[in-house]
Amino acid sequence: MLREYDCWLHKRKFEIDFEIPLFVCADEKGLVGSQAVKEYCLGIKRLVGIEPKLTKSKDNSCNAVYLNSSSASSAGSARDEFSIKVTETQIFITSSDENGLLYGVFRFLSLLSMREIKNGFELTDAPASSLRMINHWDNFDGSIERGYAGNSLFYKDGGFNYDKTRIEDYARLLASVGINRVSINNVNVRANAKLLITEKYLKEAKKLAAIFRKFGIKLFFSINFGAPWSLGKLASADPLDPAVGQWWKKRAELIYKYIPDLAGFLVKADSEGEPGPFQYNRTHADGANMLAKALEPFGGEVIWRCFVYNCTQDWRDLKTDRARAAYDHFMPLDGSFEKNVILQIKFGPYDFQIREPVAPLFGALKKTRHVMELQITQEYTGHQIDLCYLPYVWEDILNFDTAHGDNSKIKDLLKPTSTHYPLPTNHYIEGLAAVVNVGLDNNWTGHTLAQANLYGYGRMAWNPSITAKTIAEEWSALSFGKDTGQKVSDILLKSYPAYEKYNAPFGICFMVSPNNHYGPGIEGYEFSRWGTYHRADMNEIGIDRTPSGTGYTDQYSPKNAALFADAKTCPENLILFFHRLRYDYVMKNGKTLLQNIYNTHFEGYDEVVAMMEDWKRLEPLLEAEVYKSVLSRFERQLNNAREWKDQINTYFFRKTGIADEHGRKIYF
Amino acid sequence: MLREYDCWLHKRKFEIDFEIPLFVCADEKGLVGSQAVKEYCLGIKRLVGIEPKLTKSKDNSCNAVYLNSSSASSAGSARDEFSIKVTETQIFITSSDENGLLYGVFRFLSLLSMREIKNGFELTDAPASSLRMINHWDNFDGSIERGYAGNSLFYKDGGFNYDKTRIEDYARLLASVGINRVSINNVNVRANAKLLITEKYLKEAKKLAAIFRKFGIKLFFSINFGAPWSLGKLASADPLDPAVGQWWKKRAELIYKYIPDLAGFLVKADSEGEPGPFQYNRTHADGANMLAKALEPFGGEVIWRCFVYNCTQDWRDLKTDRARAAYDHFMPLDGSFEKNVILQIKFGPYDFQIREPVAPLFGALKKTRHVMELQITQEYTGHQIDLCYLPYVWEDILNFDTAHGDNSKIKDLLKPTSTHYPLPTNHYIEGLAAVVNVGLDNNWTGHTLAQANLYGYGRMAWNPSITAKTIAEEWSALSFGKDTGQKVSDILLKSYPAYEKYNAPFGICFMVSPNNHYGPGIEGYEFSRWGTYHRADMNEIGIDRTPSGTGYTDQYSPKNAALFADAKTCPENLILFFHRLRYDYVMKNGKTLLQNIYNTHFEGYDEVVAMMEDWKRLEPLLEAEVYKSVLSRFERQLNNAREWKDQINTYFFRKTGIADEHGRKIYF
Repeated sequence: MLREYDCWLHKRKFEIDFEIPLFVCADEKGLVGSQAVKEYCLGIKRLVGIEPKLTKSKDNSCNAVYLNSSSASSAGSARDEFSIKVTETQIFITSSDENGLLYGVFRFLSLLSMREIKNGFELTDAPASSLRMINHWDNFDGSIERGYAGNSLFYKDGGFNYDKTRIEDYARLLASVGINRVSINNVNVRANAKLLITEKYLKEAKKLAAIFRKFGIKLFFSINFGAPWSLGKLASADPLDPAVGQWWKKRAELIYKYIPDLAGFLVKADSEGEPGPFQYNRTHADGANMLAKALEPFGGEVIWRCFVYNCTQDWRDLKTDRARAAYDHFMPLDGSFEKNVILQIKFGPYDFQIREPVAPLFGALKKTRHVMELQITQEYTGHQIDLCYLPYVWEDILNFDTAHGDNSKIKDLLKPTSTHYPLPTNHYIEGLAAVVNVGLDNNWTGHTLAQANLYGYGRMAWNPSITAKTIAEEWSALSFGKDTGQKVSDILLKSYPAYEKYNAPFGICFMVSPNNHYGPGIEGYEFSRWGTYHRADMNEIGIDRTPSGTGYTDQYSPKNAALFADAKTCPENLILFFHRLRYDYVMKNGKTLLQNIYNTHFEGYDEVVAMMEDWKRLEPLLEAEVYKSVLSRFERQLNNAREWKDQINTYFFRKTGIADEHGRKIYF
Repeated sequence: MLREYDCWLHKRKFEIDFEIPLFVCADEKGLVGSQAVKEYCLGIKRLVGIEPKLTKSKDNSCNAVYLNSSSASSAGSARDEFSIKVTETQIFITSSDENGLLYGVFRFLSLLSMREIKNGFELTDAPASSLRMINHWDNFDGSIERGYAGNSLFYKDGGFNYDKTRIEDYARLLASVGINRVSINNVNVRANAKLLITEKYLKEAKKLAAIFRKFGIKLFFSINFGAPWSLGKLASADPLDPAVGQWWKKRAELIYKYIPDLAGFLVKADSEGEPGPFQYNRTHADGANMLAKALEPFGGEVIWRCFVYNCTQDWRDLKTDRARAAYDHFMPLDGSFEKNVILQIKFGPYDFQIREPVAPLFGALKKTRHVMELQITQEYTGHQIDLCYLPYVWEDILNFDTAHGDNSKIKDLLKPTSTHYPLPTNHYIEGLAAVVNVGLDNNWTGHTLAQANLYGYGRMAWNPSITAKTIAEEWSALSFGKDTGQKVSDILLKSYPAYEKYNAPFGICFMVSPNNHYGPGIEGYEFSRWGTYHRADMNEIGIDRTPSGTGYTDQYSPKNAALFADAKTCPENLILFFHRLRYDYVMKNGKTLLQNIYNTHFEGYDEVVAMMEDWKRLEPLLEAEVYKSVLSRFERQLNNAREWKDQINTYFFRKTGIADEHGRKIYF
């Protein structure tokens, strides 16, 4: 049974079929290494009920558990790598660095909880990526932009205000799935958040950093590019103005006095109204490099978001294609960034829609460090009211083949920094960043089952080859035990296809309610300034992004460009992203586009009904509180799915006058 | 030239062609009467530059101005009536009550300013209605619901907070056009406004009442029907619970201790989420009568709003018709209200749209006191960014013939209370109430020319037979002098037709941006809960409200029911309110509905261009500040008109695929 607060680390005593040695041999002196030992002891107590006894014996012959972060056997191993070896009387968890030991301990505990530890077990594992980052869009007033699980863990009433124990519990959860970076404030840096880089708030941030530090997690600050004039009272924030660079250098000195291991800055510039180098006719390289130079003496990095597009577009303009923006802005800058600049690129060209193509910058950038941005918080995927298991779609993203050379799938491009940097060319992705879904709700994520998205993100950032199914089974087993867990896992895996079916069809995107992004708003963006139009008329829908249209497809490798540009080879779940099609276009199943829209929407709704029934059957197996809270979310989801189904079907019926071929009810 | 703050009472010295006697004979002892004398002197000083000398001589033979509110000649005259008589050496402004004298003085000053006072001038005038009311939707935090001219004149930071001089200036403006009632707080009574009826705030309200009192204006309080439980901690607010009635009686005692002449309560109940008698399965008569009994001992009245409808409608539901709601709710209650209950009925069945039919309750109610509610604030008519001269449409409303018996136009039904109350039958309308358009902006109304709407409202409430053209000329002459004024007046008169043309076509209503109600949102309400749908498909648009549809037309008198139910006789500016029509329906001008939609939208935009050109030609005649502020609004209006034109045209072009027959540009 699940205590919602504890998530996948909950206290669950069970009959263990393997004897854990009572003694723990460890001589960890570092902060993270000693935390690893502590976590081992806490975890064993939690899972097995015994209190391990610590000893410092160096003798490898004891009946004991050996925890060691400077194991000779690990020499030359990758960063964060760990090994687990289990014999009849001994357990070895070893690594070549402290973080690796922490991850090894958490993995061991997880495997133990899943009853996979047995005599002879051996595992060596290392993350595929160096940067496994969480982005908080938390504001200093305690609100969270796109937060659906209560207010901020960090802030309230204009400043830091948190429960230290809760932050520690949070850091533990993150470290347990391998997260090593956290940006702590909204990328839209407004109000008091602008003062985060001043002494008053740095004093507070220092304390927060100390909590995360024990868990191997370093912090990023989101900064406001306009700070030199808004905060520093300079005449401008022009990145080529020496006074501006100087201002940031001084500021960096101050910041690193308080937090010597700050990971760096995260920057949203020239994006949706935020200040940036364009204001001064400078490039984004100018902007990022200026900050990079300020952080370089302290080992800091600049993560620069590529979410740059014209957000005051005129819907009458048929030429400008927002999907092109990131590539058009950043591809020409490839190779012109400092070595401590990392571009953060949203996975798709739009904005975390349910189905977008993978952005064409991936695989194309050759001389620029970069990471991929995902969204764990369910902005467009149901606000943690609707169940929507995101690793399902992340698996698709990670398996997308950029077709830039061999081994060019996203998951193949994910490589740790150390193995390729600084090489003259670099088309690797150093990691993932994701906007998190947590808040002050007791269960962290609003919808208890949305914990699986946070868990899954960490696991995929560590190992992009792991399947969504495996993750669902792991998380469910850890949270509910193996038997119940299998049933929960089945529900998770049904949730994304259902959500996608009742939502905007076939990659058309942005038929969502404006501003809040929950529920349908079919023409909600149609005449807006945001550049996301579907232009449905009585005959056709979609944007032609082939060379005969906006030419967006040509931003891809030749192979993918051809694949996407031809409706016959374009994946059908993205067909309306790339093509403008008549409603009578015949899809691969022999049905028209219109009939397929009707079909998916009736099916999606029915699948929510089925998931809810599946959940109801679990009632005897679940804690009442968990059962009821999830059930009440399913009830709300059902209502949302009904609105989507009926509004979408009615919209297209009104456009075409063509009824469903099965005679199902479409409202007028 | 116009000092924007002074509105139509501005200081404007001119060569007078008539000699005003220096002496003023007046013996007014009452509060309002003495204010009338004071206003006379202030006005003369303002307009002529001389300081009149007061004397108490009763001798009618002096070369003097006589101001007298108990004139024998006025015996038996109507309430608020005044007479003006001008001879070569004398001026008489007389009345039978103090308010009448005040109105006579202001009228005299207005006529003088327009240079219409001359030897031999005679006028006797009285208002057509007893209740000439302004509604404030001001909140205690200083915001104004649907306010577009700055924050509240009355409130700030949770309570009363005002500039006494400004309130006096405001009361003067209102009295100068005959306003005699003001409700001072939003009908949605939230937060601290709920405490208005407690001692702390009554102390403050008392001071405000004193300012208005001098100008013959009595206050209404908007109250929250749920106060007995939310404020009084009773178990309910059930109007038939004796404890609830008792609570309100005690409350009334307290209130009238502070403001003995409070006009009464204004109540929005069971409307858009506000509490009301429906919560207790009681009728609105039960609710209103309970409050009426509490106010009766003090001479107070209850104004009960009829804006009651299902605001959680399902768009799939084709039977429920929001337009029917007020009639369906209140017609069955006709005759069951206490004598001090007045129903306040919005002019149309929806909500202040640019073109709605007049609500069918008017003329139909026979045994219930009632007033008509208009909206001066430009919620749906351009937010005081767009110029929209409202008396233009009010004239249409006032000239609507309810066809319930003879003399059944709205303007004929407007009668002062005293002439018909308490009669056994009463189909008269006792007055007008209107949501005001003022705020703390220096010019009161945001758009300087929107002052004409406030002026015009007062004039029409006084005299519903006055034309919009006359009012425009009056206001413009008072504000800009006669010559420039004539040109401004021409612009005003063009503004409503232009706005209507570029807006939602032919009475369809609610194609407006949801929530803020500025700019187009063609399907913005189409799948919402608000009950205002147009259900446009590829062939047709509109709601059939004839007997073959929702039957709404049958709420009208038989003559009007027949008129509206037949598309051939239905006024074409309302045709889509009553009928569902094909786009190829041929209208009276021989063009299709679709072509007429295109035509009106191209024309409406062109008319804004023309108005702006007209305005630019006035530059040499105007104060720079006024010229520029109005010009900048025209620039914003032009942008809005362009969006309306293009979005509406594109929307229908996409629906039909039929181009404009004149080949004008319709964006795809």
